[in-house]
Parts: sequence; structure tokens; C-alpha cells
Amino acid sequence: MDVRYINPFIESTIHVIKTMSSVDVKFGKPYLKKDEVAKGDVSGIIGLIGDVKGSISVSFGEECILPIVSKMFGENFSELNDEVKDAVGEISNMISGQARQKLELMGRNLRAAIPIVIMGKNHTISHITKDKIIAIPFMTDNGDFTIEVSFEE
Amino acid sequence: MDVRYINPFIESTIHVIKTMSSVDVKFGKPYLKKDEVAKGDVSGIIGLIGDVKGSISVSFGEECILPIVSKMFGENFSELNDEVKDAVGEISNMISGQARQKLELMGRNLRAAIPIVIMGKNHTISHITKDKIIAIPFMTDNGDFTIEVSFEE
Repeated sequence: MDVRYINPFIESTIHVIKTMSSVDVKFGKPYLKKDEVAKGDVSGIIGLIGDVKGSISVSFGEECILPIVSKMFGENFSELNDEVKDAVGEISNMISGQARQKLELMGRNLRAAIPIVIMGKNHTISHITKDKIIAIPFMTDNGDFTIEVSFEE
Repeated sequence: MDVRYINPFIESTIHVIKTMSSVDVKFGKPYLKKDEVAKGDVSGIIGLIGDVKGSISVSFGEECILPIVSKMFGENFSELNDEVKDAVGEISNMISGQARQKLELMGRNLRAAIPIVIMGKNHTISHITKDKIIAIPFMTDNGDFTIEVSFEE
């Protein structure tokens, strides 16, 4: 996978979380995922298809997503419920949408499938591909989250 | 969503599980998913895109998938591990592939994104769409599993 295609996901993630919740997000060095699995308590997943096929996942721990959703809605969320689920679906959709716009400017056209949100304490996410999977760690003041991107060239 | 598009997923599921593991599968009445959420211990998820966009999820309880994978490999699996994860990815991929072939004969062309497998005790799956989500219950001698299909027309 061409690493240039990773930047659109980093930029979109920081912009979407900041715009929707005013939460500042930093990102760590993207790495090739090997044996590690992304873990989370709530994850958004979107299939991508165009000149290549791919998928992205956005996985949050509870301690990270609750403050983000609380700031999005201006009320306190203390547990993972349907509103948090819908918010993660919306966040994933917006990250995917903005990243796809940026990728289009780079000549890569992708369409998005219907997003799916997973909830469940400490679940793991595995992209089933023999191609590379890139993990991007993000940090907030209330915990970290991970985006994983896979494309088959 | 046109309910005719559900049959290909039922037929493919029964055929794939039977062919790969010799496990007999019965199916129950498909129903429109409203508030219920599909729960599972391991799920395969695949985004679909073509003249419409969609996604499918295949969610197994541990008691249901372990005997299937044990028969697939001819050895006893007593816990959810990497081989079970890969097997669920493969099963999901084959169900999606065979269903897409049948859908193509009905004039509906879809391509599949990279599959993702989720592992985690009792996680829930939610397709994020305002359109209909159809759930299809399947039964084996060792427990049930659920396929959910969503398309946006």
C-alpha cells in the first residue's frame, strides 16, 4: 500500500474530531500491523471499493469516546449506549468521506459501503488481507484510539 | 430492500457451511431488524458496493463456531483463536462471493470490500443505515448464528 494514502486519513480524523467535539487529537507514527490486533470497546467499520478494495476501522476505548461524545452533544455520557453508537457511526462516516475526497484529488476513487458499529468490551478487529494493514495511533487527553486502513492494490 | 435479494444469502450460507464443514444448517424466518441487535462472539463483516451500497455481517456464538471450525480442520478447537478468526473470514468471504454470483444473475452487481473479523465475547453489530436491515437466523445442532444484510436502494 502506498503510504501517501495514509495522510488523508490522519488529516480527516483530526479535523472531524476537532470540528464535531472540540477535542484536540494528536497522532503517533503509523506502523505496519503484524501480529498486533487493534482493541476497542466501540468501533466503526467501513468497506471501501473503487479502483482498489479496502476497509477502514476506527476503534475507541470507552474512556476515550465518552468525553468526545459528551462534548459533541453538550451533555454527560457515562456509558456506551445507542447515542454513542450512532455518534461513532457518524464520526467514522465523516472520516471516511473526507479522506475519500482527499484521495480523489490524488487520483484514487473509492466508494463507501454501509458503516457498521461494533460494541463490546475489549473486542479485537482484524482486516482479512494478505496485503499490508497500516495502523495509525491517535491520542487525546482522555485516552487513545486507533485507525486501521487496508487496501489491496 | 427487495426481499428477493435475501434468498441468495440463505442459499449460499447453507451451501458454504455444509461444503466446508459438513455441518447441517437450517434457517428461520428472516425478519426486519428494528431495535434488536445481533450479538456474537466472533463476526465476519463485509462491505458491498455496486449499483447500491450495503453490508453483511455473519455473527457466531462460540458454542456454534467451534464445532464448525473443528470439522473444517479435522481437529478439536476449544477456544477462539487466530485459526478460528481466519476461518470466519474465509466463511464470510465465501458466503458473500456466492451470494454476489447469484445476485448478478438477478441483475444486481456488487463488489466486496476487504472482510473484517471481530472477536470479543458478546459484542453487538449495528448496520448504520436509515434503510431496512434484514436479519436471517440460522440453526445448527450446536447453536445458532445470525446473518444481517443491509442495502441502500
